[in-house]
Amino acid sequence: MTQTVEPRILRGLRDLFSEHMHARQWIIDRIRSVYERYGYVPLGTPALEYLDVLLGSAGEESDKQLFEVEGPDEEQLGLRFDQTVSLARVFAQYNDLPRPYRRYQIQPVWRCDNPYEKRGRFREFLQFDIDAVGVESEVADVEMITAMCDTMNALEVGGFRVRVSSRRVLNLLMSFAGIAEERAADVFRVLDKLDKLGKDKVRLELTTGYKDDSGSPVPGLGFSDKQVARIEQFLAIKGDTRDEALASLRALYEGVPNAAEELEPLARMSGQLTRLGYADDIVQYDFSIARGLAYYTGTVFETELLDLPEFGSVCSGGRYDDLVMRFSGERVPAVGTSVGVDRLLVALLELGRAPLKKVTADVLVTVFDQEMIDHYLEMTYELRRAGINTELYLGGAGRVGKQIRYGDRYEVPILVVCGSDERDKGEVQLKDMSVGRQKTDKIKDRDEWKAERPGQFNVARSELVPEVKKLLAVIRGTGAGRHEGT
Amino acid sequence: MTQTVEPRILRGLRDLFSEHMHARQWIIDRIRSVYERYGYVPLGTPALEYLDVLLGSAGEESDKQLFEVEGPDEEQLGLRFDQTVSLARVFAQYNDLPRPYRRYQIQPVWRCDNPYEKRGRFREFLQFDIDAVGVESEVADVEMITAMCDTMNALEVGGFRVRVSSRRVLNLLMSFAGIAEERAADVFRVLDKLDKLGKDKVRLELTTGYKDDSGSPVPGLGFSDKQVARIEQFLAIKGDTRDEALASLRALYEGVPNAAEELEPLARMSGQLTRLGYADDIVQYDFSIARGLAYYTGTVFETELLDLPEFGSVCSGGRYDDLVMRFSGERVPAVGTSVGVDRLLVALLELGRAPLKKVTADVLVTVFDQEMIDHYLEMTYELRRAGINTELYLGGAGRVGKQIRYGDRYEVPILVVCGSDERDKGEVQLKDMSVGRQKTDKIKDRDEWKAERPGQFNVARSELVPEVKKLLAVIRGTGAGRHEGT
Repeated sequence: MTQTVEPRILRGLRDLFSEHMHARQWIIDRIRSVYERYGYVPLGTPALEYLDVLLGSAGEESDKQLFEVEGPDEEQLGLRFDQTVSLARVFAQYNDLPRPYRRYQIQPVWRCDNPYEKRGRFREFLQFDIDAVGVESEVADVEMITAMCDTMNALEVGGFRVRVSSRRVLNLLMSFAGIAEERAADVFRVLDKLDKLGKDKVRLELTTGYKDDSGSPVPGLGFSDKQVARIEQFLAIKGDTRDEALASLRALYEGVPNAAEELEPLARMSGQLTRLGYADDIVQYDFSIARGLAYYTGTVFETELLDLPEFGSVCSGGRYDDLVMRFSGERVPAVGTSVGVDRLLVALLELGRAPLKKVTADVLVTVFDQEMIDHYLEMTYELRRAGINTELYLGGAGRVGKQIRYGDRYEVPILVVCGSDERDKGEVQLKDMSVGRQKTDKIKDRDEWKAERPGQFNVARSELVPEVKKLLAVIRGTGAGRHEGT
Repeated sequence: MTQTVEPRILRGLRDLFSEHMHARQWIIDRIRSVYERYGYVPLGTPALEYLDVLLGSAGEESDKQLFEVEGPDEEQLGLRFDQTVSLARVFAQYNDLPRPYRRYQIQPVWRCDNPYEKRGRFREFLQFDIDAVGVESEVADVEMITAMCDTMNALEVGGFRVRVSSRRVLNLLMSFAGIAEERAADVFRVLDKLDKLGKDKVRLELTTGYKDDSGSPVPGLGFSDKQVARIEQFLAIKGDTRDEALASLRALYEGVPNAAEELEPLARMSGQLTRLGYADDIVQYDFSIARGLAYYTGTVFETELLDLPEFGSVCSGGRYDDLVMRFSGERVPAVGTSVGVDRLLVALLELGRAPLKKVTADVLVTVFDQEMIDHYLEMTYELRRAGINTELYLGGAGRVGKQIRYGDRYEVPILVVCGSDERDKGEVQLKDMSVGRQKTDKIKDRDEWKAERPGQFNVARSELVPEVKKLLAVIRGTGAGRHEGT
């Protein structure tokens, strides 16, 4: 035979099997139900965008992470690295969209990044975004923050905290620290690494630079000690409540031009959040967060899981009032947030909070005797037509033991077994696999287990559907009591 | 300001807005529920595969349609053009998969093809596949065919027909027509164009070649008139029933070695389909179908919609017993089928059978007075927490007319309007937008419409949630009678 091709995938990509796909679908359904409750409408955009649409939209870091693709007529294309740029492109391209345009979007994005699977960083991953485009008022920002909180609650992640800051606060920092405005993006990029790198490395990157663990030089931005001292004064701001943090910031920025007015929206947002029941322990003002993407212009926010403090943000976003302008020339204020679905899945698995289910079938009809295949087909379709998820064993006849192991491994709740004896008596055997599993866990003696034949009983063939329904109800704990057999 | 980037996408790609996204989600949910009823389990694979995994898996045509991508370390990658090759790669890569492995998969695929949007042919499109890997028996093929039928019924497509043939029948044709086996793939590729090109062009391509509409030469395969006559004899086989078609084929192939044995599985499948209730008018044996992909080895099938006969197949597949072998060296028989979700969406839209819904919000809370924003926020969150999909108008205050037009355009059923008068009286106004739409359709006189103020009434603020629920029930036709106002 010809040479085989090695079956493999690129590092940072993943195959997801049924257990994880079921959990991911559960995550998607939960998030969608929150976002539809907020009245967002779905949008789908192609994975491939023109390269010039993507390049320069979110800064140098994103540009470097692009997977480039060539079109059929040598068009320069790329795989989207987020859904926000595509949304801005869409809003600029179609004149007939409602304004404001509030949409949700659930699609994969690609980043030619350094993957780190333990922290849920992949090269292809699913994002679940909501954005409101054409919204000036900070009420839209409040809505984003509450939607993030409601989503985290719907996903039963346990404790979490949304940390909120604003690029405006950071812009004022430039003035406060005596740094030229055009260097702001560099500063934000470095500050965004605070959680990852720690204070010392951030200080070195702001000043002289350093060598990373691999020995590669990380160039410094060349700021003075005095400038860095002011930045660190700013980063040290803490407050038990949002209002306390704001008060400290106001005090620090006393004398910075426009500071008072610029901080007003944050004060109003805090009041609204409180009135709506999003307290200071859930939504925190934390001025040390910056978010890496260059397109943010106002509020930025991210979400950490309290039980996984090292994991990083699972849901983040911010305001980007100038991104649509790249495509339309018109300033269109916008704000959005994105759940990293695959990151969140990794986090929930680590927390033991992801609902796990291998199987979709409730019943496996085994093939005891190939001659009776029509009999098995009829039972299978009868069960399916009664709305019961049913698999017919397709691996060939014989060796029922193999089929039982197959069903056991997949965690199918019920097996149907029928030989010519049962058929001639007008009967069929049901195996309650959960009983089998429980007993084999407890009773280690194989003979004892065999003798007892637990959870295994015959029912009339004509009663197959109602008997299976009854047994399923028992297994799911909704029935009156365990079935005793017939 | 800086130069703008033109917002645009590559021809053959699409942005899908809420109406179509809702319809597509409906399609996905319906298909998934059928396939889960059959007990298939989900799988997800990355969009990017190594190029050598893709190249040569499905033949020259597919190879030409690849979007190539370069990885971060110059790895040669490509976007998947189907989900079957990835499944075969997965099955070869992981030793711990159950056998048989029965999985469903819903992901986009990319083909650098000539797009034809009216027929639903795009360069990025969603496929919904099921496949059973490690299945020798034709019972698996029967299951694929019935799953296709059940899916078409669940999608309420109206009349449809699954057309079934087999590569084995076509292999026998080589012998019958005196054509060397190694030319079979060429013949199948040409026969697959029968529906699209018609008999005359197919005959020319089998013999001397011809020039297409653009004047480009289509090379001929150089078969003799006698050979083509035998192919046409074969293509002419018709039968009112599957068994009649099979009988004609048996008669034609009399004297062809192994013909009788090779046709046995088709006879058994027909019997099983009949017993399970899939009659001759739904599932037809049509030996003129070939399917383009080179990896098929046995049964092939496709589905046409009777109300859109020119549209082409919306769901198709077949048996590919050698594809896994490309990666593992081991022969693993397999069969699968794929719904072209985006093609089907185009078809359902054309048939007027796609459920269309623009909006997700049931209620739009308008912003009459920016000073009262906290009041509106409270109502909005009260409604959301009661499980009612609610949008707060985020486009700023004032001009309620603009907000009503916005809600009308999005087809939001209910608007909440509240000024300081209503607030001071402890009331809020509900607008039943469907009444507004009905009346404005009937009564063209604006003054008359205004005087009547149809479907608009005040309720107590404290009764907002129950009143909205009552009105929604009326609008959805589940309530006792139309609300008369308070």
